[in-house]
This record gives sequence, C-alpha cells and structure tokens, in this order.
Amino acid sequence: MHLGVCYYPEHWPQSMWEDDARRMKALGIARVRIAEFAWSRIEPSPGEFDWAWLDRAVDTLGRAGLEIVMCTPTATPPKWLIDKHPDILPVGADGRPRVFGSRRHYDFSSPSYFEAARRICTAVAARYGRHPAVAFWQTDNEYGCHQTVVSYSSAAVARFRDWLRARYGSIDALNRAWGTVFWSMEYRDFDEIDAPVATVTEAHPSHRLDYRRFASDELARFNRMQVEIIREHSPGRPVAHNFMQLFTEFDHYKVAADLDIAAWDSYPLGALEELWFDPAVKSRWLRTGHPDFASFNHDVYRGMSKLPFWVMEQQPGPVNWAHWNPSPLPGMVRLWSWEAFAHGAGCVSYFRWRQAPFAQEQMHAGLNTPDNRLDIGGTEASRVADEVKALLEAQKGATADVRGQAALVYDYTAKWLFEVHPQGADFHYPRFAFEYYSALRSLGLDVDIVSADAPLDGYRMIVVPPLPIVPPDFAARLARSGAQIVIGPRTGSKTVDLQIPPNLPPGVLADALSLRVWRVESLRPNVTPAVREKDAGEDSRIGQSRHWRDLVELADGARHDVRAVFEDDHPAYVRCGAFHYFASVFDEALTTRWFSEIAAAAGLSVTPLADGVRVSRRGGLTYVFNYGDRPHSIEGVDASAFVLGTGEVEPRGVSIYRTA
Amino acid sequence: MHLGVCYYPEHWPQSMWEDDARRMKALGIARVRIAEFAWSRIEPSPGEFDWAWLDRAVDTLGRAGLEIVMCTPTATPPKWLIDKHPDILPVGADGRPRVFGSRRHYDFSSPSYFEAARRICTAVAARYGRHPAVAFWQTDNEYGCHQTVVSYSSAAVARFRDWLRARYGSIDALNRAWGTVFWSMEYRDFDEIDAPVATVTEAHPSHRLDYRRFASDELARFNRMQVEIIREHSPGRPVAHNFMQLFTEFDHYKVAADLDIAAWDSYPLGALEELWFDPAVKSRWLRTGHPDFASFNHDVYRGMSKLPFWVMEQQPGPVNWAHWNPSPLPGMVRLWSWEAFAHGAGCVSYFRWRQAPFAQEQMHAGLNTPDNRLDIGGTEASRVADEVKALLEAQKGATADVRGQAALVYDYTAKWLFEVHPQGADFHYPRFAFEYYSALRSLGLDVDIVSADAPLDGYRMIVVPPLPIVPPDFAARLARSGAQIVIGPRTGSKTVDLQIPPNLPPGVLADALSLRVWRVESLRPNVTPAVREKDAGEDSRIGQSRHWRDLVELADGARHDVRAVFEDDHPAYVRCGAFHYFASVFDEALTTRWFSEIAAAAGLSVTPLADGVRVSRRGGLTYVFNYGDRPHSIEGVDASAFVLGTGEVEPRGVSIYRTA
Amino acid sequence: MHLGVCYYPEHWPQSMWEDDARRMKALGIARVRIAEFAWSRIEPSPGEFDWAWLDRAVDTLGRAGLEIVMCTPTATPPKWLIDKHPDILPVGADGRPRVFGSRRHYDFSSPSYFEAARRICTAVAARYGRHPAVAFWQTDNEYGCHQTVVSYSSAAVARFRDWLRARYGSIDALNRAWGTVFWSMEYRDFDEIDAPVATVTEAHPSHRLDYRRFASDELARFNRMQVEIIREHSPGRPVAHNFMQLFTEFDHYKVAADLDIAAWDSYPLGALEELWFDPAVKSRWLRTGHPDFASFNHDVYRGMSKLPFWVMEQQPGPVNWAHWNPSPLPGMVRLWSWEAFAHGAGCVSYFRWRQAPFAQEQMHAGLNTPDNRLDIGGTEASRVADEVKALLEAQKGATADVRGQAALVYDYTAKWLFEVHPQGADFHYPRFAFEYYSALRSLGLDVDIVSADAPLDGYRMIVVPPLPIVPPDFAARLARSGAQIVIGPRTGSKTVDLQIPPNLPPGVLADALSLRVWRVESLRPNVTPAVREKDAGEDSRIGQSRHWRDLVELADGARHDVRAVFEDDHPAYVRCGAFHYFASVFDEALTTRWFSEIAAAAGLSVTPLADGVRVSRRGGLTYVFNYGDRPHSIEGVDASAFVLGTGEVEPRGVSIYRTA
Repeated sequence: MHLGVCYYPEHWPQSMWEDDARRMKALGIARVRIAEFAWSRIEPSPGEFDWAWLDRAVDTLGRAGLEIVMCTPTATPPKWLIDKHPDILPVGADGRPRVFGSRRHYDFSSPSYFEAARRICTAVAARYGRHPAVAFWQTDNEYGCHQTVVSYSSAAVARFRDWLRARYGSIDALNRAWGTVFWSMEYRDFDEIDAPVATVTEAHPSHRLDYRRFASDELARFNRMQVEIIREHSPGRPVAHNFMQLFTEFDHYKVAADLDIAAWDSYPLGALEELWFDPAVKSRWLRTGHPDFASFNHDVYRGMSKLPFWVMEQQPGPVNWAHWNPSPLPGMVRLWSWEAFAHGAGCVSYFRWRQAPFAQEQMHAGLNTPDNRLDIGGTEASRVADEVKALLEAQKGATADVRGQAALVYDYTAKWLFEVHPQGADFHYPRFAFEYYSALRSLGLDVDIVSADAPLDGYRMIVVPPLPIVPPDFAARLARSGAQIVIGPRTGSKTVDLQIPPNLPPGVLADALSLRVWRVESLRPNVTPAVREKDAGEDSRIGQSRHWRDLVELADGARHDVRAVFEDDHPAYVRCGAFHYFASVFDEALTTRWFSEIAAAAGLSVTPLADGVRVSRRGGLTYVFNYGDRPHSIEGVDASAFVLGTGEVEPRGVSIYRTA
Repeated sequence: MHLGVCYYPEHWPQSMWEDDARRMKALGIARVRIAEFAWSRIEPSPGEFDWAWLDRAVDTLGRAGLEIVMCTPTATPPKWLIDKHPDILPVGADGRPRVFGSRRHYDFSSPSYFEAARRICTAVAARYGRHPAVAFWQTDNEYGCHQTVVSYSSAAVARFRDWLRARYGSIDALNRAWGTVFWSMEYRDFDEIDAPVATVTEAHPSHRLDYRRFASDELARFNRMQVEIIREHSPGRPVAHNFMQLFTEFDHYKVAADLDIAAWDSYPLGALEELWFDPAVKSRWLRTGHPDFASFNHDVYRGMSKLPFWVMEQQPGPVNWAHWNPSPLPGMVRLWSWEAFAHGAGCVSYFRWRQAPFAQEQMHAGLNTPDNRLDIGGTEASRVADEVKALLEAQKGATADVRGQAALVYDYTAKWLFEVHPQGADFHYPRFAFEYYSALRSLGLDVDIVSADAPLDGYRMIVVPPLPIVPPDFAARLARSGAQIVIGPRTGSKTVDLQIPPNLPPGVLADALSLRVWRVESLRPNVTPAVREKDAGEDSRIGQSRHWRDLVELADGARHDVRAVFEDDHPAYVRCGAFHYFASVFDEALTTRWFSEIAAAAGLSVTPLADGVRVSRRGGLTYVFNYGDRPHSIEGVDASAFVLGTGEVEPRGVSIYRTA
Repeated sequence: MHLGVCYYPEHWPQSMWEDDARRMKALGIARVRIAEFAWSRIEPSPGEFDWAWLDRAVDTLGRAGLEIVMCTPTATPPKWLIDKHPDILPVGADGRPRVFGSRRHYDFSSPSYFEAARRICTAVAARYGRHPAVAFWQTDNEYGCHQTVVSYSSAAVARFRDWLRARYGSIDALNRAWGTVFWSMEYRDFDEIDAPVATVTEAHPSHRLDYRRFASDELARFNRMQVEIIREHSPGRPVAHNFMQLFTEFDHYKVAADLDIAAWDSYPLGALEELWFDPAVKSRWLRTGHPDFASFNHDVYRGMSKLPFWVMEQQPGPVNWAHWNPSPLPGMVRLWSWEAFAHGAGCVSYFRWRQAPFAQEQMHAGLNTPDNRLDIGGTEASRVADEVKALLEAQKGATADVRGQAALVYDYTAKWLFEVHPQGADFHYPRFAFEYYSALRSLGLDVDIVSADAPLDGYRMIVVPPLPIVPPDFAARLARSGAQIVIGPRTGSKTVDLQIPPNLPPGVLADALSLRVWRVESLRPNVTPAVREKDAGEDSRIGQSRHWRDLVELADGARHDVRAVFEDDHPAYVRCGAFHYFASVFDEALTTRWFSEIAAAAGLSVTPLADGVRVSRRGGLTYVFNYGDRPHSIEGVDASAFVLGTGEVEPRGVSIYRTA
C-alpha cells in the first residue's frame, strides 16, 4: 500500500525540483516515476547524450527519500531519429505513414527501431541500473495507445510472412487451415501473402485474425527485448509496464509473463465517456465513473501480475482526452485509491504531480495546478497516505493475495475474433465480459479474472463470457474445478484457425454441455426476444435477450434442465450438471438474477447491493465503497470492527472493517 | 418450375461428392451450379491447368442426373495473376488499388484482365461446352458486388476518353453538352479529361453521370465477350448471369440483352437489414423479409429475361453479410420458392448445398449444416420439390408468361442521376420505385416492371416513378397505350446531357401534362407539408408530402383537374386526361389511396389486401402468400379449386387455386 | 442603397445580352458583377487572350447605364494551367492533391499560382481598369470556400517554416513557446518542422494553431497582391471581396484591412440547413432563415468595411448546395434586402440574374428562371428598387453609419483554438457568439460586432463570447469604456502561444475580475447542471448551464456579487464592478434574462420582441422585420411616421418609420 506520482523534471525549471521532491515526500508519496518521454533531452542529437540533468533529477528525488520508477523512453523517439530512419514510422490501414508530431510513432516490426530502442534502453539501464534510488523500471509507456499495435508497413508484412512460416510450416498447411480455396484465395508461397487490408470486400477472417496475433506477438517481443536489457543492467529491480484500461488490442497475458509487475493507468471518467455505455449511464456516473470499471481492471491486472499489481497512473481530476471531460466529485480520488488497495494494489501512483501548462495534455489535471497550488486530488492523496499509515499500523497483511469467490474467464483473442468476424455488428466482447463481471459484483462477490489457460481449481463459480476458441483441456479443467460454471453464447464456436468446429459449436464443450448449436442469429438493437420460464404461459416473460441467439439442440438422453426458453420455445438457458449454458446475452436484471441463483447453488453467500455500493474483501478486511448519491448503512457490523470510517458510508465514502 | 443448388466440389473431399449428388437428386433438385470461384484450382499456376478434379465433379454430378450450370471463374482471379499484372486491380475513389484477398479485385477496363478473362473463359468453355451434363452457363458472378462497377484507374480513364470521343465527336460538342463554361471547366482536348473524383468540391454532374454510363458500358462489354465465347463453344446452352437484388450500379437492361436468362440472387432478410427501411419496418419483417421485396426483383428480372428468369441463389437460412443476420421463420424458404414460381421463375436454386466451415462466408447457412445434416432450408426445399411435382402433374402451363395489369417504369440512369445531382440529400430513386410498386401490390395488382424504352401497349395502368430523362417518344407511347398514367415528381426534369430542359420540367412531357414546373424544393425529413383536397378547409388534410415538391404552373386553358393541393395551395396532384401528375412523394396511405382510385378509373379490379398478404396470378393459377402473423382466409373460392393449400392460409403459408 | 446582380454573359448567347442589360436597368438594378469564373474564356489557351467577348459585354452593360463590378478570375484556373503546373493544386489532409474539375483548386502557397494569378490579374486590371463602366472590383471569389484555406502541400510547408522563423527567431524560442519538451517533440531546426497532420494521435496544439495562423496569412498575402495590382491599374475604384456567411477559417479582419469594401454572400436558408441548428429550429425557420442570421453577418462585415459593406450575393430563391433546399416564402427576398439596408449595406446584389440550365449550380434559382421569365425573386427585387427610390426621395442619410448600443467582440483565432484544442467535443465558438448576439437582438438592441483590438469607447454594453487569447491591453480598454461588460467562460484561458497563463485563467483579466479559474470541466450534451440564485433553495432553479463550467475561486477581499450558483454551489455568474463573468454557457432564456438586466444596468432601453420580430435603427429610421407567422403590431408610433409599411407588420413584412 504505497503511493506514487508521475513526475516530469524536464518540464520544469531545475530550481523547482528540490521543493517538488520535498513536498511529494511530505504528502506521503513514496515512489516517483520519471523519464518515459525524455528521449529528446537524454539524447538531443544522434549519439550526443546529456545525462547531467537526469543525473541531477535522480539524485534530487533520491535524496528526498523517494524511490524512483525509471522508464525507458521508447514511446517517443525524437525527430532526428525519424528523419534518419523514416521506416520507423508505422503505416495505417490507409497505406500512409503515421508521422512524427505526437507519440508512439513507431512500428514494432521496424528493424531500425528495434535496434534504436535496444540502444537507448541499454544506455539508460546502464546509467541508472544500479543507482540506489532507482527501485523499479517501466518499459516504454502504454503499449498500443492510439491504435498502434497493428501496422501495415512492408517491414511488418515481411515479418508476418516469417511468423506464418513458423506457425504453419508449409503453405499447403496454411491454405488448409485458413480455407483459402474459398474465392480462389490460395497462395503458392508465404511470400505471396500481404497484410489483410485494402481488399475489395472483407479480407479472409483467418488471415485477419492471424495478423492480429502476429502484431500482438511483435509487441511482446519488443517488450521482452527491453526487459532483458533492464534485468541485465539493473538486477533485483522489478520491471513493470503500464497497461491501459480495458485495452484489448494485444494479448496482455503474454506481455505480463515477461514482467514482474502488471500496472495499469486508471482514468474512470475518461473511460466512461469513451466506451460503449449509453448516454443515460454516462450521465448517471458522470463524475464518479462506473462502480465496476476500476474494479474490473484491478482484477484483470492482478490476475496477470507476479508481484502485486500497480495503478501506475491514477486520475487526479479532469482529464483532457475524452470527448467531454467532467470533474470528479470531491472524494473520488480518495475512493479510487482505496479501491485499488482493496483489490490488492501494491502502489497507486497519481498522474501527474503538476498540471503542465503546455502541449497536448495541458488540460490534464495533476495533484497540483499549473500555478503550483495543491489541488483537490493532492489533498485527497495526502489523506489516503495518512489513512494507509494508520491502517498499516493497526493491521498487518492487508495486501495479502487471496483467491476470489468467483472466476471470470477473460480472453484477448476473443475480442479480435469477434471484431474480424462479427456476424452481428454490435457483438462487443469486452462489453459482455464487463456486464457479467458487473452482475457478479452487484451481488457482492469478489471476482478473479483469469485466462482460459489458468488453473481453475478452488473457485466456487466460474463465468465464461463468449469464448469462441476454447483450449483443448478447458472442458476437463472446468469439470474438475467443482465449480458451478456459466457458459456464454458463441463459446466453442470456432477452431483455433477460425473455422466452425466439425461437430458445430460448442465444439470441444459439446460433451460437457450435451448440446449442439445448429443455427445462430444476430439481432439488431431494436429486436430483443422475450425470455420466459419453460412451460409457462406466453405472458410470463422474465426478461429479454439481446444481440444474439444460439439455437440449440439437446442431445438425446442427456440430463438437461431447460431453465428458460425464448418466445419461440427455443431453449434460452440450459443447465447440464454443473454447466449453465446461456444461449443469448440477457438483460442486466435477468443476468443478475440467474447469476444469483447459480452462486447460491455454488454455496456462495450473495448480497445484492444498493445502487452504487460495492464491497471487496482482502486480507481479513472488508472494504465498502459508495459510488452512489445516498448514504449507505452497513448492517450487522460492530462499531469496534471499523478500521476506517463507520457503518454509515457517505456518498463517495469508504469504510473498512475487520471481517469476523 | 425447377429447383437447383449451388455447389462447391472444391470445398469438400472428393469422397463426399457422390453422396452429395445422390442426396441432391433425392431431394428433388434438378440443377447444380458450380465453379464460379474455382480459378485457383483450375489453373493453380500460370498456364498449368488441372482439369482432373473438375472433370470428375462434372461427371459425378452428371451421372446422378443433375443438369449443370457451369460458370466462368472470372470473379476471383488468383494471386499469381494479380502479381503478374497488378494493373488488373481496380482503383478506389481514394486513388488506391483495391487489392487481392477477397473477390472481384479486377477492373473492367484493364486490358490485362480482359485478355486473361478471355483466355480462362475460352479454356473452360472449350473443355465443357459440349459436355452432356452441362446444360446452362453463368458468366462471372454478381457483377458489381462490393461497389466494383466504377474504377478510377488510369486504364479506365483512358477508355473513358475514347468513350467520350465516340459519344460527342468533338470536344466543343462535349463542352456545350456539359456546360463546362461554368467555373472555367472547359477542355481543349478529350485527353485533358480525368475521372470526376478528388475534386475540391463536387465534380461536374454531367461529367459524373457520363462516368457512370461509361462504367456500365464497360461491364456490359466484358460480359458480352464472355457470352460470345460461350456461344461459340457451347451452342444451344442458355447463358445466364446472376444479378443482385435491387442493385442499380449498372444498366441491367443492356447486360440482359446479351444473355438468355436474367437470374438474380434472393436474400430477403439481408436486403431488409441493409436497405433504406426504417428500424420499425426492419423489426416488423425481421424473419420474413418485406412482403414486396422478392416480388419486386422477380418482376424486374422477368421483364428483362428472354427465357424465364431464375433465382440463381435463394437464401436458405441466416446469411453472414448483413449487419445483423436473423434466422428466417420456418416456412419462409418454401414461401420464397413458391413466390418465385408465381412470378414466372424457371428455376429456384438454393445457395448453397452445405454451409462451409471456413472463410468469409462460413456463417452463411446452406441446405445442410457444416456437419452435413439437412437443415430447415433443406427440408423446405424438399417439400417444394414434391409440391411442384404434384402441381405440374395436375396443371400445365403454370409458368406461362402473362402480361401484368400494371406496368412500372424502372430506370437505372435515374438512380445515377439523382445520386450525382441530388438537390435533396435523401432523394433515393430505388426507394421511391419500390414504394410505388408496393402500393400497387398491396392493392392486389400484378405488375410488370419495364424500361422506359419498352412497349407500353396493353397495360391498363402505367406508373412512372421519378424519371428525370425521358425518351423522346415516351409521351407518345404513353398516350397511345390507352392506360391511366401516373407521373412522379422530377419526371422530365433533365435532358440527356443533364441539363434543365429549355422549357423547364417536365420537358418533353410538357404538352401531355400541360404544365410547367417553375420551381422545386427539397424537404428535410422533419418537414412534411400537409396535402388536402382542393377548396377543402385547412383542417381537411388527407396526407403528407415528403422529400420534394414540384411547384407547378398549369397551362392556360388546359383541361386540368387539380385533385389535391399542398397546405400553401400549390397543386399536389393534377389530372390531365389520362395523365396523373404527382408533384411530390406522398405518404404510403395516400399513395395507395390514389393508386386505388386511378386503378379503378383504369378498369382494374382492386382488392386491398390484409397486412402481409400478397397475391399473384399466372398461368390460370392464383397464388396467395401470407407474410403476416395471423391466418388469412380466402373468401369466395371453392375448396375444389385449390391445387395447393386451402382457403385458410397460415402465417408463412402458401395457397394456390385455379382461377375461375 | 443600391441593387446589383451577378451576371455571366459567357453563359448565354450574345444575342441575349442587350435585352438582359435593358431589363436589369428597368428592374431598378444599378450594378452588375461579372467575370469571376471566366478565365477559360479570357485566356482559352496559354497566353492567347480573347478580350473581344468581354469587351462587348462590358460595353453592352455600360451602355445600358449599369455600373460594373469587375472580378479577377482566380477562383477557377483553367485546365491547361493546372496541367502545366500541377503544383498549383492544394493538398488535403489525406496527402492527396485536390484536383481540377470544380473550383478553388489552387494552393495559396504555390509559387506557380501566385505568379499565374499575378499575371491574369494584371491583364484584366490593365484592360478594364480605366473603363468608364467599371466602377468596382472584386478579388477572386469566396476565399476559403470548400475548405481551401489550409493546404498540406510541400510548398505550404516550406513557407510555413519561413513563417515560423519570422515569428520565433530561433528554434529554441519555438520549442519554449510551444512546449515541445512534452513527448520529446523538440526540434533542432525550423526545417525539421512538418505540417501538423497525419500524426499518430493529435498533433501539438500550438503547432496546429500556428499552421492555421500561417494559412490565414497566406490567404491575406494572396489577396493583397491582387488589390495592389488593381489599385495600380484602376485608381479610384473601390475593391471588394465577397466573404462567406459565418465563415471563420481565416482572419477576415486582416483581409478586410486591405480592401475598401467587405462584402458577403447571403444565403439564409442554405446556412440554416448546414449549420449547427437543431432539427426543430431548422424546421421552424425553414423558409425564412433564422431571424438573426443575416443580421449577424451584416454586423460582422459592416464592422470591418471601410466603405459601407455590401451583400454581393443575395439568395433569390432555392439554392442547390445545402443537403435540403427549400423555397423561401414569398416576401423573404424583399425582407432580406431591406434588412441589409437597415444594417448599413451600400448595395444588395442578387445571385444571379438568370438560373443556369447546366453544371453544378443548375438548381440554384436566379431572378429569372432558365426559360427567362421573371421569378418571384425578380419581382421582389423590383419592388425593393421602387421602395428604395421612394424612401431616398423622402429621406436622406438612411445609410449613415452609427454606432450600435452594444458591442460583441468577435474573433477568428478563438474559433481555430477551440477547434485544435477543444477539451469539450462540442465547444463551437461561432455558435456561442451567435447565441449571445441573438439574445441581444431579441431584446431589441442594435449591436456592433468588433475585433478584440477595436476601440471600445462609447458602447454601453460589451459582450465577450469565449475569448481564449486576450490582447494585453484588453482589460484596460474594457474598463476605460465605461460599459457594462459580459465575459464568457474560457476567456483569457490561453497565452498567445496556446499555453495556460502562469496565473491560470482568466489570465490578464484576473485583476479586473478578481478571480481565478482553478478547474474547468466540459459537459456532454445530456448533462446540463441547474443554475440557481445564490442562497436560494435547491428547488429554485432559474436555468441550465451547458457544454462547459469554469470553477472559480474569488479573490479574497474583492467586491464580488455572486449572482447565481450551480447546483453544487460553485459560482455561475459573478459580478465584479462593471464586469459580469459567466462561468458557463447558459440556456437561451437565462442568457437573455441576464443580458436584459445588464443592459438595464447599462442604461439601455430594452424591448423584448415577439417571436420572429426584429428591429434595427439607422440614420433616423427604425426598421421592423417580421420573420414570424403572425402579424405584428407596432405600438405607440404615429401613422404619419411610417415611410414604408404601417404599424401592422404582416408575416414576412417590413415597416420603416422615422425615429422620434
């Protein structure tokens, strides 16, 4: 339970640094991240390094007792490098280079850039790797931001061909795996294959999916190169990367496997505005963020982090990058901070120390205003620091890792697959995963978010949002877990090559579920077939289906319990032993109701929570958060149990009590 | 009345072919279309032909007693050909080639491709032209799909200049015809003229319209080349092309003139989703399609087909290419099949025999599921086969061609003209033509859809949706027909060169209508001026106008009957002898009411039909179709008259009775 | 108070010219604009001039007693020139040239075009500069139309680098001014700087703003070159340019400073359809235009014109270029004409004499229809001519320039700044300026629209819509004016380099307002925080805020009057002496109410006007316009005072009376 801050000494006169460091420390901040955009100051001209300023900054911060998170500056290659190697620039779907003038203007597949990145990383790691104040590292910054995972450069295509060679071995194998005989798309050699872009109509979906996999692998390789350099020059310092909230364009599990710490950047208000939520929801949680959004990400990144995960950047006030940027309500910076700790965060680091008065992010708040006065966010951070201190004195082990009650299986390939091969225009995987998660959380359950390859033993309930490609041993691991298992629609609907399984969906889950999806349909937004209990009258609707329907045929003689049907009598929800098959996406109330019943069947204690109230349990403590507008009373907890707050949780308030 | 199926032997193991053929035949299928995407298997490498597999497929199908529709494979040139001749690729409006990786990646104006297409067509036609099992031919596949009629390549521009030379003779004539003096757009030579694209603001409308005409002519030339080759090598076998539903990007009359059979591909659900219909309508007919949509296309293609038209591809279940893809209701595949026959179809061919598990269309249903079980569509096709057999035994001449009661004049240039020169953003020609058609059909009328150059004698009622360019002899032919004639707004509003006629609209119809359109206005969607009967009070509104108003001045002394006026007293509907002039697009109810009155005046028997019920008469039979949700009772027909079904037509049902 | 018309002799047979000229004169038209698109006729081939036809046209019009407005033809360079110098073409944001085939296909920074323009301007000016019939000049036509101010050509980038050199002196100064250290965007040389386009995410806002300033300066330089040539060859003839309605892409003040007459092209119906108004407003004023739209532009251009401003093109009927193009109600062409004179117009010139039957604008009405009959617009123009004549005989000095009661500060850089750096997606500067203006006008006030650098003495009330960059002496000039001053949100929020001021907003206005904006937030459209009077209960809302909130901290000890607060108690409207600070954009009713109170405090007489009624005072006359649907009675004016119309103003009517 540490606090940190992001700091840019290069943005401010050196005369301010010492005071800044002192004030950070006084505020209760322990860690400070620096230098991730400083390449042009570290190496102002080719090969001419200017270490003096950064040495001084590191020393100043270190002397103040701050632990430094040193970054590699590869997210922003300087102009002279681009001019020297224009092939560094990524190429967009329109075939044009994406040029210098903002950030992330590099191609993960560019050999020139790979070499240049290796060189600058080595220089920085060699210089500071053993500096006593340098305690952690961050590679690059927000991989993939601004749609930079995929590039259509000739360098990328050349490496893609090699990637395909390695994956398929022979061109015949590729032709078979993809099914290129369709529309005479057959290749005679890997070198005939281009990027799946600019085609007359949609490119081949297997081709597109492989290009996404390839791009994700390229990114992981680039990160791995950096991690290896840091490990060599800075032994013993954990290496982190700051992932982005609900970002799905590369396989985070693969990148995190090379890191010590999976960190993420938490901007609950910007996310609410930019993501799929409808206008009423955006208005409802305008200045708090959605009550499950930060939690969801905490649980995603905790699941893949070897050391306790971090929030590397925490929103401290309004941001600049959403279409509209409201101001968080007083108390929210504190609430978000505590919520991170409640989910096991090792550090919450605010972005940024002081709002910059210039450039693209000049409207992004900091803990201090540009005129260097402490802003609300700063005040709240200070309060959190004091509270953490008090709590840690009163209580040991608060950050201990515990297994959640329920697991949610979360997958990146699923997102890409439904994007390259949607069948229904609004089949948005992260949304559905989030909705399942939110339903679980609204029932008061703690959730672990895990990959489909993760061990599943020990969970009482496992929820699988639509997972088109299922690992071969998935059914066995699910069955062995002993949990109640919810399987979303479209699960098992594709082979690893993006073909329909020979036995039709749910493919390798067919035996476990004893059913066959003989037909599917996608539904436009104004079509939401009613769901009713089986054998009940037509007017006994219990909810609505949305987006999609799997039409299932139950295997003869299997022990099914058809729990609900659609208005045309097709099964909507089928139980088969511990497996609960959802043949559609259902409305929020119905999903929550069924999850509640299934959780009960799993022996989990379910507590439907008031609107905006959320609960987390960790290390012998129960954390209660109130995102809502009304005070919330915690029932049945003795006053003496509270280590923070009381049984009355004010709007935007936090209470923590010892769990009996 | 034959059934067919589309089959891709190259997608399946040879071991399945014989069984497939046997089951087709057993199901009642007589014809099988093959090979339209098989170029990469026929010629895997340049000049190396592999006929063995196709020979075997043809033999296998032929031995089973199936008639083969052999296709030229030019819709999907293989990769090696593109790599050899990159100038084959069409060029988009953005100036970039549209590349290999899906289909239709060729430019109709590419000399390289014209030659390559000639070569492969000759090879296929020479190989199978006289094979006893090959009974029909199809050229290419769905010309123009994916916006491939128009290309902006240098090859296209070069041929466009020649096309202009041929059309105008001299550059002065072109300058005058277009009116290039406006904005100093004058040319000194045909070779100065580029494609009308990438201009600062809208390019010259006459230039744009001519480019569309040119592109349409290029396509027709390409098809004609193929037809000539087939005719030479395969005498006596009818040649078809499978046009697309409501596709308007080239002049289908011109292409059909070179064919024996105009076929079309019928996907009523996908069309409903993708076309202009509003969300409530899309929801209303979600799983049936719009009751007039297939009919409209049947009537379009029957009108241009020398032999009975075909449905070359019939939707057998959900498709994959619409934004949302619902499942047809049980019974719809049968209903659609019968409706095609009711409109005179010679063959209904389902797409496809078995759903493919791979590539872009893996979610497109077939008569069989990918695991090779008969799907609903297959069952219904089988039922249709049985019913047809029974009907044909009971009844001869069911497919006899008959003239409809009403004619609707349908034009392709009109669509292009309103697109390049809209004046109102939503003036959507096919929509208005369809709405007129739908109004006629809802009154129980049989409709022929004809070109503006077609003979018009014999019709009792002729409806002309907005027809900006009117043939010189049109007024005379209309008058001579003896019919009641409805003239839509904007008719006669342009000369052949896209200028305003010297006498203003309706141009060459001015004498017939005795009026002059002195001003027009286009109306945004939330502006719908009321219409009322002339001299009636302001509160006597009978309907609404939409999209457009022609403000007309009646010629002095003419014998007009102003049947209705707009709220500001301008004439809305003017009768002048047998001519009925509509000065706007009216709401559905008002259009239907006036069509009903005009039909009555024409001596036609009008029967307003229940919601979703449609009737067709052909060959002494009356066909009744029920797209609706409620059973429909046919009144006044003796039970003994029914040759299919009864007087009670269930939802999605069909009944056929002998017409007294 | 003169009438004019736009005429294209090159579009019509010479045989019509004399009759056209005679009829113009007979209609009461005094001035005729010609030749702005005639380059291809003046110089049909390189260097071969054909003056004969234009000599004849000029002579014919002159002989009829018409004063000619001669134009330079640079808006439409001919094809041969483009083929000779393809670098003339502007380059779009997509990197592609914007090609020949419409108009304005030239780059203001192209050296080739600058030279070609100089040559043709010299030729035309030398030929006609001293012709007795040539009384005025117009440079080019509608600078910037079709988004042609900014080009991304290499020529533009080269000149941009020089422009930056001149502005900043050294690259270090630029790096500091922009703050390029952020994201390592530092430059080592001006020649490293490219256009701010095609970057991975948003380009640097200071870079973008400077590119807009540069582009604006380039345009002004191009115009200045033309003006200088004309002045040399045609001494004594005023030079005009026809600006566009509410066009903001270049700094009109700078261009107007080089002209004698600022003219604008008035198309009230097209503007209503294309601008930000919501559908209900578009429907409400469909055939009249918004009652404040033409006024707003009159006041904008009057403010920057040395001689009385002109309406160079007045809409005479439906136009062709909006998404929908309705027909003006009878009377509107007359009303618009009189409204221009009421605002001080020297001339109202109709576009165009006769509707052309060909090319892009064939659906644009003229005073005559294409078949050469006088249209409604022509009839109304004729009536205006008669009325003006009668008025001028009765009254002298009607066009005298007078100072308005209120000033509205209007700025072009503000528009660009909020566009390159919005912070809220819908912060649309011209809309907010227009809404302030409209509120003032609805209170019956006459308004001058002035630049932030204009003298402000003599106004009773000054309204400043959001003005991010405030001139250094602005506070002093405001204070010295003695007026009541309304300051909109975001005013003073940026330095000239687009940085946050060191003292935070309102920057240099901080002393005058005694407050500090410590935080801001932008609000999505469905979030409109309530406003209430301070210390009033929560249910006492008086209105709503929209789009934006400045959260302000009041300086200790200052004499503030917090007039209203937001629902969360932050100040919404703060008065500080004569300064009234609006911390948000408020709804129309609340804005109007507060403007009314402030105007009263300023000693202005306020008269809330009926819906659609507007009043202007000029030269001892009061003009009353009725855009509404109901007759309007003018109270308390003696019948003898009316010089046009009466005290009953019919819908679309105009009355003018002598002001007591």
